[in-house]
Amino acid sequence: MNKYPLTTVVEKLPATVPFVGPETQERQSKIPFKTRLGANENVFGPSPKAIAAMKNVLDDIWMYGDSENHDLRQALAKFHGIGYENIVVGEGIDALLGYTCRMFVEPGTKVVTSKGAYPTFNYHVSGNGGELHFAPFEGDHENPQALLELANARGAVLIYFSNPNNPMGSWHNADVVQNLIDNIRPGTILVLDEAYIEMAPEGVAPKFDVSNPGVLRFRTFSKAYGMAGARIGYCIGEAGLIAQMEKVRNHFGVNRIAQAGALAALEDQDYLQQTIAEITTARDEIGRIATKHGLSVLPSAANFVAIDCAKDGEYTLSLANYMSQKGVFIRRPGIAPQSRCIRVSAGRAGDLLRFDKVLGDALAAV
Amino acid sequence: MNKYPLTTVVEKLPATVPFVGPETQERQSKIPFKTRLGANENVFGPSPKAIAAMKNVLDDIWMYGDSENHDLRQALAKFHGIGYENIVVGEGIDALLGYTCRMFVEPGTKVVTSKGAYPTFNYHVSGNGGELHFAPFEGDHENPQALLELANARGAVLIYFSNPNNPMGSWHNADVVQNLIDNIRPGTILVLDEAYIEMAPEGVAPKFDVSNPGVLRFRTFSKAYGMAGARIGYCIGEAGLIAQMEKVRNHFGVNRIAQAGALAALEDQDYLQQTIAEITTARDEIGRIATKHGLSVLPSAANFVAIDCAKDGEYTLSLANYMSQKGVFIRRPGIAPQSRCIRVSAGRAGDLLRFDKVLGDALAAV
Repeated sequence: MNKYPLTTVVEKLPATVPFVGPETQERQSKIPFKTRLGANENVFGPSPKAIAAMKNVLDDIWMYGDSENHDLRQALAKFHGIGYENIVVGEGIDALLGYTCRMFVEPGTKVVTSKGAYPTFNYHVSGNGGELHFAPFEGDHENPQALLELANARGAVLIYFSNPNNPMGSWHNADVVQNLIDNIRPGTILVLDEAYIEMAPEGVAPKFDVSNPGVLRFRTFSKAYGMAGARIGYCIGEAGLIAQMEKVRNHFGVNRIAQAGALAALEDQDYLQQTIAEITTARDEIGRIATKHGLSVLPSAANFVAIDCAKDGEYTLSLANYMSQKGVFIRRPGIAPQSRCIRVSAGRAGDLLRFDKVLGDALAAV
Repeated sequence: MNKYPLTTVVEKLPATVPFVGPETQERQSKIPFKTRLGANENVFGPSPKAIAAMKNVLDDIWMYGDSENHDLRQALAKFHGIGYENIVVGEGIDALLGYTCRMFVEPGTKVVTSKGAYPTFNYHVSGNGGELHFAPFEGDHENPQALLELANARGAVLIYFSNPNNPMGSWHNADVVQNLIDNIRPGTILVLDEAYIEMAPEGVAPKFDVSNPGVLRFRTFSKAYGMAGARIGYCIGEAGLIAQMEKVRNHFGVNRIAQAGALAALEDQDYLQQTIAEITTARDEIGRIATKHGLSVLPSAANFVAIDCAKDGEYTLSLANYMSQKGVFIRRPGIAPQSRCIRVSAGRAGDLLRFDKVLGDALAAV
């Protein structure tokens, strides 16, 4: 018998975490980050109306949040032109991906994703005993055709696909994504992670077709809406499929302040557009900084930019570690060939000045 | 093939929810609750210092919360005189019970609880394919001896035991609980839910023994600390056991504002004592109201009181429904013999005046 009466699946799991958080790094190094551009957070923050809405409900914190997230779901349904029954709100995309894996993954279930795509999805797949199969990126893009072929070959139940992609910022246009959706076999579900979609150009998100039981789409208030710390996101899908998530989700799991903030953030689309403009400016500035230092950037449809350092993962890790020691938090993708890049979130002018300086120092030192 | 490629466990799950929330009830009846005493929330709310702390960090909401919940864990470790490594902070006890079931429950795992104890625990057990076995209450108390015997007879991996108990408010003294802990067989884990412990008399909580791998203890900021809407609680146990939860928990799941609020709430023990005094006063007042209407109350060590209506569950359901129609939200336990009672949370003077009036009307009408 084991020391603890764990399930077979949990017993076998390694003791890893998908990400080491910035606060953990700060505690380890004892050097606080002056510039925090490594977690794809949105430094521009949420609408002042969202902040005001959250402040307004602080005195209501003694009450559990509405377990149906009714008002937000209703607003989202109207906003997207879909039904209330096509939306489930959860404690961020991470939690919703967890529920999705609970629904579809049991020991031996085959799941397909791209090598180097979102580690937290993989964490939830493994955590439910699933078997991950990886298709390579192609030209720094997730490869829909390769994912489909691998899924068909392995008999996968889930296919993970992000658009835009993290960590590279690359994207596919709606017709390519629609083609992927159209070619998913019955019995397979596409997990379409659109965490960064609000910052992508027009024509990247396919139209919603909530009659299709083969796709679940994930959106969040953590990125463009600037509320990562609130833990609130949502999933869109066919009504019957969404109803199945009711069987496993934590019904009273969403913070009441987050509910109010997300609703106000959604209603302030002008502010969202202003944020996106600031992010675009910051992406351009990151591009200028990279060029100045003799590096190139990948095109990005997200709030971060992958800077190609044209060397291996050891080198970029050294760069990232050096910068970390100087109080600048960025990330380096963990897996080749993406690991030749460093990933830098859009920042304010002051953040990018410091980034520029410290990147220069790092390139000279490493 | 099923319509959706669900796991066998999820496919079989019924489409039920552990609780219908008050907002859902309001939407169904179109009658808002003027008095909300049905969800065991703490109407007295958190310390003003917690509110201030949360207000202070609203502008930081663009950042994910610390994935280790370091500062709060450190403060809790000091407060309880245990190690940092003996604590995991999560998105409320509900989420932590969910992780616990993920760790120990797989299809066929036997789990023992009391008939009429916390439904959300049962929800998570069933959600992971576990098999629930129920020991009856004895004299409106959970029965440790019966739970132990049933667990031994069935080969249970988990035993759920709450102290104080919800929905009855009953409790066992520390020696009884310690005896339960001491008699748990190796290979069985005691899930000791102490959500209401801060409001219990001295001598109800056994001392922490974090060398014991057979017990996990659950605490929360939702009840005495008045922060139900924040979704933050914690679990205490032997270090190796707590480390196992790292393999399944949602690492970035806790709201950043909740982290700050919980820390400030913990640090304001004076306010906690003041709240407990207000709750005690309210419990006494609920007792007076019940007596006035010819009913009796059960002794309570929690922030609610079970009022014995000395009739069946149909009757108490009618009472609760009548009161709901008059804007007063209380609950009636779902299962006999507890369902002869209604359960009323401590309220402010105005809440209890309205409760008094509407209870009188209900008793006359039903």
